[in-house]
Amino acid sequence: MTKKDPAIDRLFHALGDPTRRAILDRLSRAPTTVTRLAESQGITLTAVGQHLQILEECGLVRTEKRGRVRTCSIHPAGFDRLERWVREHRSTWELRLDRLGAVLDEEERGD
Amino acid sequence: MTKKDPAIDRLFHALGDPTRRAILDRLSRAPTTVTRLAESQGITLTAVGQHLQILEECGLVRTEKRGRVRTCSIHPAGFDRLERWVREHRSTWELRLDRLGAVLDEEERGD
Repeated sequence: MTKKDPAIDRLFHALGDPTRRAILDRLSRAPTTVTRLAESQGITLTAVGQHLQILEECGLVRTEKRGRVRTCSIHPAGFDRLERWVREHRSTWELRLDRLGAVLDEEERGD
Repeated sequence: MTKKDPAIDRLFHALGDPTRRAILDRLSRAPTTVTRLAESQGITLTAVGQHLQILEECGLVRTEKRGRVRTCSIHPAGFDRLERWVREHRSTWELRLDRLGAVLDEEERGD
């Protein structure tokens, strides 16, 4: 778990930016076009394109071009990785709490 | 979900830093002292203190002073919030996929 994981680094770097999280808020409601995304965030097409590239690279978002329109949507696999990270970092600790509880119980019983 | 949430902002800011994530890696294995944490990360006590303050403020870590020794441990509540964020951003979309599936089924049946 302490090993360097470039995928996790990319993921948290992507999520560290409030505009990118606002884009995810928007996309989690429904897929939309790049143009509408730029309008809703009040940023340029170039800026939204840069944010989308980062979100795509870490697997949180997918974009698809149909004709002249590029549509963006949430890519659940990226969220799976994040959920796994959360589970790993919390559950190990909870497991240790359980073990500690077991040791204390044994001590109480005088085992 | 698009509303500004200072707690989520603090959380992702805290997690955006690789040293802070390394501290969480370490603490998820077992609680430890500030001194040992600084040694394991190869950083000064001042630096580890600053990182811990940020991790405490967003609820991911707890520190407790006993005598002259400060011990740090994972605080699961902070991880709950993160897990909720992940679920909200993915499940809304999955729900919509389900609904879309239902609509397509209806169309196929000619309802």
